[in-house]
Amino acid sequence: MTSRTTVEQHAARIADLLAPVLSSRPTESVPIDDALGRVAAEDVRSNVDLPLFRNSQMDGFAVRAADIATVPVALEVSGDVPAGHAVPVILTPGTAIRIMTGAPVPSGADTIVPVEETELVLGRDDDLSGAVVEIRASREAGEYVRERGSDLARGEVILHAGTRLAPRHLAALAAAGITDVGVRARVRVGILTTGAELAQNDTAGYGQIFDANGIALASLVTEAGATVSYRGSSDDDPDAFRTVLREAVASSDLVLTSGGISQGAYEVVREVLEPIGAQVTTIAMQPGGPQATAQVDGVPIICFPGNPVSTQVSFTVFVRRLLREAAGLPALEPRTVELASPVRSVPDRRQFLRGLITTEGAVEAVSGSSSHLVAGMARADVLIDIPTDVLHLDGGADVTVWTL
Amino acid sequence: MTSRTTVEQHAARIADLLAPVLSSRPTESVPIDDALGRVAAEDVRSNVDLPLFRNSQMDGFAVRAADIATVPVALEVSGDVPAGHAVPVILTPGTAIRIMTGAPVPSGADTIVPVEETELVLGRDDDLSGAVVEIRASREAGEYVRERGSDLARGEVILHAGTRLAPRHLAALAAAGITDVGVRARVRVGILTTGAELAQNDTAGYGQIFDANGIALASLVTEAGATVSYRGSSDDDPDAFRTVLREAVASSDLVLTSGGISQGAYEVVREVLEPIGAQVTTIAMQPGGPQATAQVDGVPIICFPGNPVSTQVSFTVFVRRLLREAAGLPALEPRTVELASPVRSVPDRRQFLRGLITTEGAVEAVSGSSSHLVAGMARADVLIDIPTDVLHLDGGADVTVWTL
Repeated sequence: MTSRTTVEQHAARIADLLAPVLSSRPTESVPIDDALGRVAAEDVRSNVDLPLFRNSQMDGFAVRAADIATVPVALEVSGDVPAGHAVPVILTPGTAIRIMTGAPVPSGADTIVPVEETELVLGRDDDLSGAVVEIRASREAGEYVRERGSDLARGEVILHAGTRLAPRHLAALAAAGITDVGVRARVRVGILTTGAELAQNDTAGYGQIFDANGIALASLVTEAGATVSYRGSSDDDPDAFRTVLREAVASSDLVLTSGGISQGAYEVVREVLEPIGAQVTTIAMQPGGPQATAQVDGVPIICFPGNPVSTQVSFTVFVRRLLREAAGLPALEPRTVELASPVRSVPDRRQFLRGLITTEGAVEAVSGSSSHLVAGMARADVLIDIPTDVLHLDGGADVTVWTL
Repeated sequence: MTSRTTVEQHAARIADLLAPVLSSRPTESVPIDDALGRVAAEDVRSNVDLPLFRNSQMDGFAVRAADIATVPVALEVSGDVPAGHAVPVILTPGTAIRIMTGAPVPSGADTIVPVEETELVLGRDDDLSGAVVEIRASREAGEYVRERGSDLARGEVILHAGTRLAPRHLAALAAAGITDVGVRARVRVGILTTGAELAQNDTAGYGQIFDANGIALASLVTEAGATVSYRGSSDDDPDAFRTVLREAVASSDLVLTSGGISQGAYEVVREVLEPIGAQVTTIAMQPGGPQATAQVDGVPIICFPGNPVSTQVSFTVFVRRLLREAAGLPALEPRTVELASPVRSVPDRRQFLRGLITTEGAVEAVSGSSSHLVAGMARADVLIDIPTDVLHLDGGADVTVWTL
């Protein structure tokens, strides 16, 4: 066997290549309505106290605690404060003011008596003129009063840098009157698929196939929290590939390619990129052996082989974790499960078989190991990771699986 | 205590009310480029075999196995088939045809010899006229040949109804030349927030607050895989609420409201919906006691209380699971963790405290229990579910938590 690059070595090379792009994203300001799932670029401090003003936690009556120390006690109803009442109200000592949840507590009042602990003994709910309320329970000063700033004081951090914005974060921002938020710009990924065999429209002629890799990479990129900035395709003509590569590089933070990278003739990606410094390598893995990395105008180019299973496995093994991390998405850590049936592997290569988790929680290989089995891959929900030096595993053995 | 509806009873009522809407979604056809995360409405069968044609798994030479039974053997190179080669080729027995991965296997050839097991002894890679190749390893018939239909036969199911479309499914559809797919229509959710205290623009006047519930519900609905079909707001004027309610009902499969549902005066949702049959109830839970359900023109209306924590907790407890299920999203099952510190609860109510998972994997209550603590809720990542009859739990006790 020729000596091959290991999966770990190639993963480290790609991580190094992408680090400058992924670790320092520019900040962009977006309306909070569009910010779900984005990552806060910086600490956000509140310009206001929350609550904005001292308000009632209950529907009831605002009074002075001193006036209801002995109960029952009848108090004149000197006012009414619905929520949203726009005029400040002052409590005359020895009286009560009807108040709704969320309404500003009148100056002079220091507690709220819930409506359940009161009864109107004169007047009606819908006409409080001359009304009198009987208070049946004492309340301490401060009870059922939400003090201004008791949730968050003006100047405090309401959102920490690096937070992935969930509904509860957006709600807090909205409550503080914040309408726009600075978030990390999504990573812009250009996608190029190559090959003279790719059909250019809805019909595949003799010897042609439909391009499965364009949509595979685009949706993998989207799912990993990045954005697809360019999608293009070329046949095996170097000038055609250079044209789409130039457009992809101009609009992207990084570019993914599929196909054209192995040792045969007509390998357009290798042909164009190797002379300008691409590192073309064979990885000790199956599928996904031929791989390359390059840089064009400072933009990292990650080159995958063109078989559709190879492309998807390569993205999953080498790029997914990095993009998810940049997007603030939780890592999809490989985990250990039991094999439902024996599997075979090949010498000198780490193999990623397509697997399906059974109802018992074990994993079973589905489809064959060949990298063209694109429909077979759709039946899988994990990759089974078979170490390089293992040729055979019995049913019941523990294996590592990667969630797809 | 007055007898209250339990959380389970109210959850069951909402599930019943929403079942007709959620269980039979109309089908819509979308381009596969827009189908990531959607749910297949029906089984999709392939109109083609995959692979579309018999093709080579390797770069190498297509030969007859019988002609290489004894090696080494020198064969005339009678042709060259790059991938995408548009003209059918026939192998003359006793010769070899150079072939690239994915290219159609010439008629008459039954095996591929990988390039590594060959050497051109006459001719050059870029000029095969008069070339001769030495074959150094025998291969059985069928080796490195991908038979037409060996991945999936025409007429077989390529995508099962109910599958949530991941990149690998879209890739398989694309490979089969399928450009559009029938998916379940997303659930259209109308959102209405109410209250005279809601500021109508960027400035909150005296006694006013900024609306945190509109964006909270909109983003919760989006995160649960449904779509926001309408967002409106009204003050406590019944006619104003009727107007936005009518618009929401006209465009939505279900409507969520916040506020205006408790026992106080100026409760606009209750005032409008109770006379037309709303079930208004008090749930034995905190936050989130006052709740209601109704139907308007056959559209279910789910009414939450207006405090921002109550609104978010109510959605999480009563609606999230149902919407996620309809969207094919995995359930976020409550799980059991250890309490880091003691917590207190209240009598006769199931309490949902805001909690934060510690680095040790335990859970700690954050913020207070009051339902106005919208900034406090943003610091939480789970709800701690304290059963109705529990008033106190020690640190170290097991509790159920709901992921936010």
